[in-house]
Amino acid sequence: MKSLAVKATAVLLAAAFGVGTAYAAESLQDVMKRRGLNQQDVLSAAKTYTPSGKRDEFMAFSSGGQSGQVIVYGIPSMRIIKYIGVFTPEPWQGYGYDEESKAVLKGGWIDGKEITWGDSHHPAISETNGQYDGQFLFINDKANPRIAVLDLRDFETKQIVANPIFKSDHGGAFVTPNTEYVIETAQYAAPLEAKKFYPLEEFNEKYRGGITFWKFDRTAGRIDVPKSFSLELPPYSQDLSDAGKGPSDGWSFTNSFCSERYVGGIERGRPPFEAGCSAKDTDYLHVINWKKAVELVAQGKAKKINGHDVLMMDTAVKEGILFLIPEPKSPHGVDVTPDGKFIIVAGKLDTHVSVYSFDKIMAAIKAGKFESKDPYGIPVIGMRDTLHTQVELGLGPLHTQFDSKKCVAYTSLYVDSQVAKWNFCDGKVLDKISVHYNIGHLMTMEGDAADPKGRYLVALNKLSIDRFNPVGPLHPQNHQLIDISNDKMQLLYDMPLPLGEPHYAVAIEASKLKPGVRYKVGTNSRTDKPHPGAVRAGEEKIESKNGKVTVYGTLIRSHITPEIIEVEVGDEVTINLTNLERAQDETHGFTVSTYNVHASIEPGKTSSVKFKADKEGVYPYYCTEFCSALHLEMQGYLLVKPKGWKATTKEMAKAAYTEKDYQATLKKIADTQAVIDSVVGFITSTNYKDFPDVVNMVEDATDQLNKTADAKAKHEAAAAKKDWEQANLWAEQVFQYQVKAADIGLRAKTYLEQNGAKKLK
Amino acid sequence: MKSLAVKATAVLLAAAFGVGTAYAAESLQDVMKRRGLNQQDVLSAAKTYTPSGKRDEFMAFSSGGQSGQVIVYGIPSMRIIKYIGVFTPEPWQGYGYDEESKAVLKGGWIDGKEITWGDSHHPAISETNGQYDGQFLFINDKANPRIAVLDLRDFETKQIVANPIFKSDHGGAFVTPNTEYVIETAQYAAPLEAKKFYPLEEFNEKYRGGITFWKFDRTAGRIDVPKSFSLELPPYSQDLSDAGKGPSDGWSFTNSFCSERYVGGIERGRPPFEAGCSAKDTDYLHVINWKKAVELVAQGKAKKINGHDVLMMDTAVKEGILFLIPEPKSPHGVDVTPDGKFIIVAGKLDTHVSVYSFDKIMAAIKAGKFESKDPYGIPVIGMRDTLHTQVELGLGPLHTQFDSKKCVAYTSLYVDSQVAKWNFCDGKVLDKISVHYNIGHLMTMEGDAADPKGRYLVALNKLSIDRFNPVGPLHPQNHQLIDISNDKMQLLYDMPLPLGEPHYAVAIEASKLKPGVRYKVGTNSRTDKPHPGAVRAGEEKIESKNGKVTVYGTLIRSHITPEIIEVEVGDEVTINLTNLERAQDETHGFTVSTYNVHASIEPGKTSSVKFKADKEGVYPYYCTEFCSALHLEMQGYLLVKPKGWKATTKEMAKAAYTEKDYQATLKKIADTQAVIDSVVGFITSTNYKDFPDVVNMVEDATDQLNKTADAKAKHEAAAAKKDWEQANLWAEQVFQYQVKAADIGLRAKTYLEQNGAKKLK
Repeated sequence: MKSLAVKATAVLLAAAFGVGTAYAAESLQDVMKRRGLNQQDVLSAAKTYTPSGKRDEFMAFSSGGQSGQVIVYGIPSMRIIKYIGVFTPEPWQGYGYDEESKAVLKGGWIDGKEITWGDSHHPAISETNGQYDGQFLFINDKANPRIAVLDLRDFETKQIVANPIFKSDHGGAFVTPNTEYVIETAQYAAPLEAKKFYPLEEFNEKYRGGITFWKFDRTAGRIDVPKSFSLELPPYSQDLSDAGKGPSDGWSFTNSFCSERYVGGIERGRPPFEAGCSAKDTDYLHVINWKKAVELVAQGKAKKINGHDVLMMDTAVKEGILFLIPEPKSPHGVDVTPDGKFIIVAGKLDTHVSVYSFDKIMAAIKAGKFESKDPYGIPVIGMRDTLHTQVELGLGPLHTQFDSKKCVAYTSLYVDSQVAKWNFCDGKVLDKISVHYNIGHLMTMEGDAADPKGRYLVALNKLSIDRFNPVGPLHPQNHQLIDISNDKMQLLYDMPLPLGEPHYAVAIEASKLKPGVRYKVGTNSRTDKPHPGAVRAGEEKIESKNGKVTVYGTLIRSHITPEIIEVEVGDEVTINLTNLERAQDETHGFTVSTYNVHASIEPGKTSSVKFKADKEGVYPYYCTEFCSALHLEMQGYLLVKPKGWKATTKEMAKAAYTEKDYQATLKKIADTQAVIDSVVGFITSTNYKDFPDVVNMVEDATDQLNKTADAKAKHEAAAAKKDWEQANLWAEQVFQYQVKAADIGLRAKTYLEQNGAKKLK
Repeated sequence: MKSLAVKATAVLLAAAFGVGTAYAAESLQDVMKRRGLNQQDVLSAAKTYTPSGKRDEFMAFSSGGQSGQVIVYGIPSMRIIKYIGVFTPEPWQGYGYDEESKAVLKGGWIDGKEITWGDSHHPAISETNGQYDGQFLFINDKANPRIAVLDLRDFETKQIVANPIFKSDHGGAFVTPNTEYVIETAQYAAPLEAKKFYPLEEFNEKYRGGITFWKFDRTAGRIDVPKSFSLELPPYSQDLSDAGKGPSDGWSFTNSFCSERYVGGIERGRPPFEAGCSAKDTDYLHVINWKKAVELVAQGKAKKINGHDVLMMDTAVKEGILFLIPEPKSPHGVDVTPDGKFIIVAGKLDTHVSVYSFDKIMAAIKAGKFESKDPYGIPVIGMRDTLHTQVELGLGPLHTQFDSKKCVAYTSLYVDSQVAKWNFCDGKVLDKISVHYNIGHLMTMEGDAADPKGRYLVALNKLSIDRFNPVGPLHPQNHQLIDISNDKMQLLYDMPLPLGEPHYAVAIEASKLKPGVRYKVGTNSRTDKPHPGAVRAGEEKIESKNGKVTVYGTLIRSHITPEIIEVEVGDEVTINLTNLERAQDETHGFTVSTYNVHASIEPGKTSSVKFKADKEGVYPYYCTEFCSALHLEMQGYLLVKPKGWKATTKEMAKAAYTEKDYQATLKKIADTQAVIDSVVGFITSTNYKDFPDVVNMVEDATDQLNKTADAKAKHEAAAAKKDWEQANLWAEQVFQYQVKAADIGLRAKTYLEQNGAKKLK
């Protein structure tokens, strides 16, 4: 019976796919057979495959873990579209290799020292009314406690701030419902005072955890450091947080591990941290009234530590803004439900997920009903007094996200390598699916916002083992896309992570993102302000005084102005470059041989590189982006002359061009113009104005063509003087502008043909 | 008629996919409608979609351009599986953050100065008899002229060598047919002497190009620098090269641009480089007898420049090993056909591709038939005397690769944004396909080897413009996969490149790669030798003398030994760590808060980090890879004490555990053992020994369980002394080992269930 069904399927598929596939030698059935695909595979393929030029529905922002970057990918295609340099220098973006981005990275120096990487963990998208608004992204560095701000208008890192009192930060970034604050917590307890040593024997007395509330100035698009503050917390490794929303707005929740305050030392005969930190059955959920904390700081009740406002524990207890609740041991996630009514915690070493009721927590606080105080005097609310329900899910429950369907949640199970779908209202398990392997966090679409979007879930698996072609001992991670549209979850796609170990990710509806494709000419993209080194075409100059040489240059296909920079050995050289292009995707790069600088200069941007020209000699510079057919010729020379060098009287070698060469070049120009005219004729015969991308291309092509006037005047003037070298070369330059215009024109023509442009009558 | 066909298709598809998809609410037809897919899209999806755990047919190694890395992706799934750090530090891999990889990067310092990035261009896989052997990969850095060697046994960079005489290097790496030499050419001419200045007025006399032949020692897996040599060449920007093979073995071919030797200077009123460098109709193809060059160097005919053997032009001319042939202007590719009989050159500013006959070149040389000499006395062979054919392909022809089908070649057309398929034997154009947009290089499977594999072509497009969801002004590149199995080429997939701007790529049959998954315990992976800092379990120690502290530590789920490191402020600290794991994919990472070090330590590897502990205070260290359920507890403390600190007499705080706690932990151990026993029962009831991955997991789980013996002895000894704290904590440690064993066991069980393991009778 089964083989009959398969045979019937084959016939039907062949019939179905006989239509319209004239050039395809293989039918779908052939391909399935050759590649060993079953019908479910083909369905998964159809659910994820995104044809050329089509867009993804959601965009995910994933931490890059120890790579220190943010990874951007599309869902459901699961194609990584960008790695954004955040804590780690990245030369393709010029990040950490031009002066503007170096200033951003310098904001993250600690104890006056450069840090060149980060262990990024938890990204958060800015929110308005608890909903993702797609404007900014925040992410933390665990190894060197810092928070970075990325602007989603250009996908660039704009700011890094170092935490003034922590030594590590695993629990960031999380935002309050209107992005008033970005929440960061300490992980491993340490003295709060900078560079202060206390022995481990004084762990309980001198080591502290904490939570920082970074004030975010949305208009400036930057964290306002002086308006930020922290709370001192006990030395219980604080872990993740979440802000309340709706009814729980104004409160935040932070879980913890090793509330045993155990210090290991296996080399001294003491059991290791892992044994002592997981010996008790419960840790503590921290419940904080952050809105009241803001008021207390405004009232001057904070103490200054390292110049930063810190509300000490005794103040917090006295003012009633800090409470603890026991939670299952070694939890990793704390997640507020979309309606803001419940807080879900999963203890990795417990099989249950616990659902706390915000109403019950408030009732206990109001009634002053506490079961005890912790060693630091913080009131502890009874677990049973606050639980809505507990549900047995499996081994190693870790992190929970939400569906668009009411009461439906998904929790990752690390040890079981599964995702559990369950109902947090009535406490029932609905479905389970295996993942590969050892899932950490998981992500649903806008799954921690007030209005999750459902549809897809991504399992962030820590191990891939045998899932992909082998690439040596260091394996990629595996993000698995799961369809959650139906009752049963279904695995759709395995995506290897080629660089970094993502911990957490957030996904937003793609339509909410509206990034630009060019800057206003002369912009410093890291400050969003006009760059003092910017010049317009024709204003390029080199200034030299007191051992400092400053270049004000421009870039356009396919030359750098200036093309020769002469300095003396020992000079400090600053080269400012403005990209004059207006066309989308016409980025230029810039480097100087062996001087270890690089800039990525997108249309309109001004960047600068700076170095000491301490090596005598000849150093080519060039455009590092393949920008045009003559990209390789987009070059120049930095000449580092010995001190006191006397200019030679020799002239630059002349090329022996004749009038015949000039005439040949004029002929070439006329021929090329004919091509351009025909392309222009085609474009203007269509409704091209209905295609914004084409309108941009036409503008760019016109821009290039307009430049021919000056070169034409020059070649004609030279020809009049019978200077055939100059005449021919300037005529060649006219041709170069034509080539770029033709290139853009052909691109526009292809676009129109492939996107159904209509002929105007 | 058409709508009827569509309707019929819908019915047939629905029928076909009604079978076996009980949980899929949508049919294939539903999905196609919802996502706007046509039948061709579904066919492309089926040709590229690779289900979980299935492997790709080919593996591509792509340059990362200005990112300085190598990108590894699978074909046809077009999933990027790894970025390998090469010229740029990359913390996820610990590359540039541990001492072993710092030593590799230091090999690439220039003029005694650190270079922290590269502009990688052209990767080459090692060859045996002109066929890819999958052992090594070579890649160049254009900005800072260097070559890197990667070992494909572990996908790590093993060596970087700086070119001793160049200032840039666009034209590398290319290998001779048995990888005797790796070829690198200069790009922008400059004085060959290190740090030597000559004015541009002496360009023709003092500036030089060149070609370097790096000797590769296959046994050592490293370039043998003293046995390497160069040829001095005229200041014609040498570009790409290819080595002859078969009949042309022993010769190499290098093209060039700007043989005009033009120097721009737009700021001085001189037309820019782009005009002067493209004014002539032809440039020069360089033809070199490298086997004879080797002999000349052995005979002592080279001159030492910067300590490196250089065959000067006059020697090369006199000895008859260097010739020029005119080639169409501003070419980018020079590609020897698989049979070694022809050399194909495409000039970007010509519409033709030119096919040169090696036989004709040899005949002209033998007959002494030269049309002229260049200004440096190099014999120029007539273009017409050496051409087999020229074929008009279109605007901006750039690079050619070959099919498995005889005489079939593919050439990229930059300006036309197309790929042309043509026959180089009879000079006919066979097919063209549009790509998106502005293709640079292209790649077929093993397409520059003696035995290309056909099947797929990848277009390396420099612009993506509108192809993907927008991610700001800096766009990804677009690698488009094209099916070349049939007469007509067909576009299958668009892959965004999220980081870097690839220039060239090479693809090899996946089955030829056989990387390992673990190292012999205690290996320095960058030297492939035993690491002097390696220790086995139980041998961990800390040595301290003369202000230097050296730690010999180990890593295993989930603790670092030692867990406390005490030093005095100002000490130089070296921490050696050996990963004791044997399980595939069980990598640990290591960092110390704010000290800017990081290591990625795969199973068996030993890595070390080194820093000056110049900041007094308390600095947590931890494992940066999510390695286990208690990964967060895999921590320790570096204590940087003030000079002369006197140890406190206070004892470490004790936890108040009771006999009851101990008994509860014993109960937990017994329960967990029952789970383990049941999993072991399942595994051993199957033919698990037929699954090598499972055999590894079982070994790893057993390894973890064996560790319980020592902890058990400790908790029983403590219990006998009624030391309930120690008894309970060591019992907890037994449980921790059990948890890891259970985790691995469950993973093995899932694997067996999903991979059709059979029950033994």
